[in-house]
Amino acid sequence: MKIDLNCDLGEAFGNYSFGGDHQIIPLITSANIACGFHAGDENVMYETVKLAKENGVGIGAHPGFHDIQGFGRRNMDLSPDEIYTLVAYQIGALSAFCRIHDVKINHVKPHGALYNMGARDKDIAHAIAQAVYDVDPSIILVGLSNTLLVSEAEAVGLKAANEVFADRRYEENGQLVSRKEADAVLTDTDEAIEQVVKMVKENKVIAKTGKEIELKADTICVHGDGAHALEFVSKIRERLTKEGISITKLGG
Amino acid sequence: MKIDLNCDLGEAFGNYSFGGDHQIIPLITSANIACGFHAGDENVMYETVKLAKENGVGIGAHPGFHDIQGFGRRNMDLSPDEIYTLVAYQIGALSAFCRIHDVKINHVKPHGALYNMGARDKDIAHAIAQAVYDVDPSIILVGLSNTLLVSEAEAVGLKAANEVFADRRYEENGQLVSRKEADAVLTDTDEAIEQVVKMVKENKVIAKTGKEIELKADTICVHGDGAHALEFVSKIRERLTKEGISITKLGG
Amino acid sequence: MKIDLNCDLGEAFGNYSFGGDHQIIPLITSANIACGFHAGDENVMYETVKLAKENGVGIGAHPGFHDIQGFGRRNMDLSPDEIYTLVAYQIGALSAFCRIHDVKINHVKPHGALYNMGARDKDIAHAIAQAVYDVDPSIILVGLSNTLLVSEAEAVGLKAANEVFADRRYEENGQLVSRKEADAVLTDTDEAIEQVVKMVKENKVIAKTGKEIELKADTICVHGDGAHALEFVSKIRERLTKEGISITKLGG
Amino acid sequence: MKIDLNCDLGEAFGNYSFGGDHQIIPLITSANIACGFHAGDENVMYETVKLAKENGVGIGAHPGFHDIQGFGRRNMDLSPDEIYTLVAYQIGALSAFCRIHDVKINHVKPHGALYNMGARDKDIAHAIAQAVYDVDPSIILVGLSNTLLVSEAEAVGLKAANEVFADRRYEENGQLVSRKEADAVLTDTDEAIEQVVKMVKENKVIAKTGKEIELKADTICVHGDGAHALEFVSKIRERLTKEGISITKLGG
Repeated sequence: MKIDLNCDLGEAFGNYSFGGDHQIIPLITSANIACGFHAGDENVMYETVKLAKENGVGIGAHPGFHDIQGFGRRNMDLSPDEIYTLVAYQIGALSAFCRIHDVKINHVKPHGALYNMGARDKDIAHAIAQAVYDVDPSIILVGLSNTLLVSEAEAVGLKAANEVFADRRYEENGQLVSRKEADAVLTDTDEAIEQVVKMVKENKVIAKTGKEIELKADTICVHGDGAHALEFVSKIRERLTKEGISITKLGG
Repeated sequence: MKIDLNCDLGEAFGNYSFGGDHQIIPLITSANIACGFHAGDENVMYETVKLAKENGVGIGAHPGFHDIQGFGRRNMDLSPDEIYTLVAYQIGALSAFCRIHDVKINHVKPHGALYNMGARDKDIAHAIAQAVYDVDPSIILVGLSNTLLVSEAEAVGLKAANEVFADRRYEENGQLVSRKEADAVLTDTDEAIEQVVKMVKENKVIAKTGKEIELKADTICVHGDGAHALEFVSKIRERLTKEGISITKLGG
Repeated sequence: MKIDLNCDLGEAFGNYSFGGDHQIIPLITSANIACGFHAGDENVMYETVKLAKENGVGIGAHPGFHDIQGFGRRNMDLSPDEIYTLVAYQIGALSAFCRIHDVKINHVKPHGALYNMGARDKDIAHAIAQAVYDVDPSIILVGLSNTLLVSEAEAVGLKAANEVFADRRYEENGQLVSRKEADAVLTDTDEAIEQVVKMVKENKVIAKTGKEIELKADTICVHGDGAHALEFVSKIRERLTKEGISITKLGG
Repeated sequence: MKIDLNCDLGEAFGNYSFGGDHQIIPLITSANIACGFHAGDENVMYETVKLAKENGVGIGAHPGFHDIQGFGRRNMDLSPDEIYTLVAYQIGALSAFCRIHDVKINHVKPHGALYNMGARDKDIAHAIAQAVYDVDPSIILVGLSNTLLVSEAEAVGLKAANEVFADRRYEENGQLVSRKEADAVLTDTDEAIEQVVKMVKENKVIAKTGKEIELKADTICVHGDGAHALEFVSKIRERLTKEGISITKLGG
């Protein structure tokens, strides 16, 4: 039994620092590296691929909308053809730094609004998956567990990874409870850790209604900003290890 | 005896069209494709790589400064480290579309201000050359004939190509006469064609002082915008062919 | 009886030319000038305000989303607060060139996706209107006839102008027939001119269902690109004049 | 006897925070507010003008090159005409938020590379000054003490303010010692404070050669990032007050 821990890295931009990449990287197994469209830039990408390599974590492209001001979190109404080229471009850009540092892109995880749109819209999910496949069919595509992004990835012939969230509550249909609702986030650390263990060991989660639902868990999304976040990830690692679950990068 | 004819392509951007890519491409052997920083975007790049492949021309990355407003023609004071990552990123981005269309990047030619700065500044020339080499050592780097960009390319282990201009006058030291001077451009087509033939056949050019100087010529820069430009390229092709010079893409 | 003819101008950007500003400007009474977010830049704005002044047309700010690649035509999911500052910033930027050329901003017309979103979403319409009012309450706000943008403009205390389209067909509810439908556009020039005259003289239009509906018409949107467009505007002007309708800038 | 203390504010951008605006603002008398080209954005500008008004400090536009990645610190080779429109646009943009908050732009201080280029190049200095004058001739232009930016401001009819630096060493010709030299910065707080007092009271400074030179001091540049910076500004304020020097905004 194994699980991957992934985190967004390389989100600094020019003179602007962001996040605590050096603190979180020893605790994770996969890094989603921003590609200069919603965050990051070519200098940050160079350094982040280097950092990921030195720490032996899986390297992932983290493509997003071309909107640094909005950090890629604002939906943009692009056509599937535009999404296809958007994703391809950013994977290509990251691949240059991978060749420089002699590593490979192991996975792609769309960022923010693109990730959410890909989970819900089949044409967008397909465009993302096809772009990844056409650039490099050996790359693993990460999508929200049980959504269109995962199924379209598999449909085009990619390996897909189901992503789950430790501290987010789920609807009965497997979707995340919207952040606009009061009980969207699990604020109790122990409860979150129990949820993680259940997801990884049983491929199940208890929805907000109390009903137990199926949920595949290949990778857990964690965050690296702030002392609390780091402590939370450490506790998850400890518990997973105690449960005999191997913490391993995607495809590893 | 052989020569390459290269032209900048893929300089449209979003809703803005630019140049006559479809008209010029049958007449050239190498395409310098803008990579989204000074011109072009991911959609244009997709189409331009496709067009270049269909016409069998050599595909080149054409990296420039991140300045679409200035079309990459305004010097920007970047450090060599910043230039290194700037060039790497853009080659990587183009490589995605090459993988999609199953072709290879054959050459890199820096654009505009970056090209000129690379011709004159050794540290910048070195940074450009090292970036190309580190991303893909089989790529040919195109620089202004007899300048630092060519010598640094060879110094890092790349194949380099010396670029000459059909319709520009030369100084005795091999540099182009500045466009700020009255006699910078050869306005007479026949004179320009004689200059081309002499450069290709004898590796020599008559400088504006009247003195004959040495000048290596691997590729000739041509332009695709306007009826006159197309007619000029056709005449060059005709004459070169008559002289028994093969018009072939770089490295071909 | 009077009507305004408005046209988008100043949509060139850096090295990219766009439209035929000099050809259309003698035929119109109001210019919507791009403000550098979806098109235009500071150099183009300087020249376009100058051109508008020389031709005595009303000067309007034409704010759009920050998306030059998409020409401001792609919906972006901004909050009303973000839309408020987006609009204010762009009006302010244009106002600098108006002070330089000693003219005033007469109107504001949101561009593309922002215009469409403002027609349908009350919060967005309100944010646009409030921004205009707070920067300069004497400015006229142009919106699609009979939509929320017009009513919110009036609600905050602005003068509003109802915009109609000569060559677009209307639904019974006063909305434009979507361009995705086959009969969205009137291709027959005479039919379009009849529609214009009816809208201006009677404040009525015949919807695609054949039913006559009410429609206020303060200004007609025209285009300046291409010989056909110019000829069409000339014919509209001729006919309106023959009908005794004065062609006058907004508020004039 | 009086002096102004100015500080760069509003340099956050989108999701990226920057500096400690709320900490420094009670200690200063003039705020240089970024205008969205090298830092800041329309949301940050709205908040920063509000903050400046609430604290009663003089509001200044802080225009820079269009280069957020480089934070406006990289020279860009723009023509004087381009610099003129660049500066005008940004002043205009800020003026919208001033009208919203019912305050006036009191000064303009160019940022980073634009400031340095304006100090040394007469055509650029003139372009900056003319842009300020043409947009609003009542604005005070801040430039490095005794440089072309100050003299060109006065030449076009603007009030100018001479800026000095508390912790930078000076050459005999009144220029700052380059940061590339070892002794460019005064690291001893007491020495820096003595330098400030001498500049303000006597309009003199001791150059690095030991020679006393003339230097007009209308405003002192301070920084707001970090505990040390805040403490340093507090000490300067204390000492200036003890010396009977009034700390007052420009033109106040």
